[in-house]
Amino acid sequence: MKPLKIVIVGLGLIGGSMAKALKQNTSHQVLGMDQDEDALLDACSCGAIDGKAGRDDLKTADLVYLCVYPEGALAFAREYGPLLKAGSVLTDACGVKEELCAAMAALPGQYTFVAGHPMAGKERSGFAASDPSIFVGASYILVDTGAPDWAMVLVRERAEEMGFGRVVRTTPARHDQMIAFTSQLPHALACAYVMSPRCPEHQGFSAGSYRDVSRVANINDALWSRLFLDNQKALTQELDQLIANLSRLRDAVDRRDQEELRSLLRTAAQIKRQVG
Amino acid sequence: MKPLKIVIVGLGLIGGSMAKALKQNTSHQVLGMDQDEDALLDACSCGAIDGKAGRDDLKTADLVYLCVYPEGALAFAREYGPLLKAGSVLTDACGVKEELCAAMAALPGQYTFVAGHPMAGKERSGFAASDPSIFVGASYILVDTGAPDWAMVLVRERAEEMGFGRVVRTTPARHDQMIAFTSQLPHALACAYVMSPRCPEHQGFSAGSYRDVSRVANINDALWSRLFLDNQKALTQELDQLIANLSRLRDAVDRRDQEELRSLLRTAAQIKRQVG
Repeated sequence: MKPLKIVIVGLGLIGGSMAKALKQNTSHQVLGMDQDEDALLDACSCGAIDGKAGRDDLKTADLVYLCVYPEGALAFAREYGPLLKAGSVLTDACGVKEELCAAMAALPGQYTFVAGHPMAGKERSGFAASDPSIFVGASYILVDTGAPDWAMVLVRERAEEMGFGRVVRTTPARHDQMIAFTSQLPHALACAYVMSPRCPEHQGFSAGSYRDVSRVANINDALWSRLFLDNQKALTQELDQLIANLSRLRDAVDRRDQEELRSLLRTAAQIKRQVG
Repeated sequence: MKPLKIVIVGLGLIGGSMAKALKQNTSHQVLGMDQDEDALLDACSCGAIDGKAGRDDLKTADLVYLCVYPEGALAFAREYGPLLKAGSVLTDACGVKEELCAAMAALPGQYTFVAGHPMAGKERSGFAASDPSIFVGASYILVDTGAPDWAMVLVRERAEEMGFGRVVRTTPARHDQMIAFTSQLPHALACAYVMSPRCPEHQGFSAGSYRDVSRVANINDALWSRLFLDNQKALTQELDQLIANLSRLRDAVDRRDQEELRSLLRTAAQIKRQVG
């Protein structure tokens, strides 16, 4: 297969890690764009990209990754999408899909849009935190928005080259509902958890369960407030469900109802053993 | 210092790990007691203990660890406490302290009771899961119940020998309040979390935050229902606090109030950065 010309827009944690993974594992040409000149320089000097992409590179690129906030992805597609050639693929890495995919579908352009969501991250952000090992074994979600198979395959193969362990296909609505539970809800509850008046005194009294539940509380409020609101309906539903489940446990504890409490804990343990 | 004669009652995850840590790092004589003959045999054959402790060993032991459920700890102290010699120390590893310490104080015996809580664990239980590395760097809480300093020092020095990273002293009431937040609440919310109808479908849509929040949901319902109820007041308070904080986030999402949502997330992120 002929190496592709790939442009990565946004060299933060995800874009930087993608660039490094592609340079490490493939012979594709990898170019970068970023408003932050320092990130571009860092990426060039460590070999994460072959160079900075300009307008002419967008005209000849085979594949463009949007690794920026949702509003940035839309703004880029609106401004630069008309430059992209016929047969090229524009794909994104945004964490919420339904609103974005509908907005993307309304934009003009000769490219094919493939909606994607690499399920990887860590507590730190920015190019300095980028690390291709975060993709190893992780899921890459491809969201069906009517893109033809060849375009889905193009993005899927790159995900495999980056080291992702599985590629999952789903609809925008199901993506957003599942992500509300698997990703947004843990972030919301980590934040709610550390707001306890006991939290500042935890040192010396805490172990692995504190560490794990609170890990993602050091949240990027600009990004996550946007993701939460873009998925308002599904996340509200998950929060209501969690609050109801916590209330059942709370009431069983408060009533000292050991039978009910054991039954709830046993149910949870069975679910966790079954679903992993 | 002369090696001590130490008896460990209950060779499960914690007792087994303590035995292994002491044998690995010290020259103390380490004997074990367990209702499960297989656990005793396993512990003997892998060198985690020097042998099985009988009644005569209890009479001459310098230090006895109760690594059993709270009711088992009380039952043991009631039955065998009168055998222990003057100058010996009986200590425990139970996760809730106020009720247990009050009950222990009422028992007769020539030994000194030191209430302890090694802050370590993992998802699996039993001697087969025991592993002294779970103690490395962890906290060991010593609870003040009027024991003299020499007895506290005896238990603290063994904690250091086992590899614990810090030894913290506190009162029974403060212990239980802090543990409600740092340990019991994460277990309760892991259980509430996996009870979402979306949980059985998480595969392919989940990453680190799902894994971390749900990790302890495979809970031992017999042990934890007892721990929850022994700490009913403090845990109910923490659950109320968490439900209130989740409800604030939920309402901000539901109202699409981005300012309020960002403010809540920013507060959480600041707390996490400050307190670790």
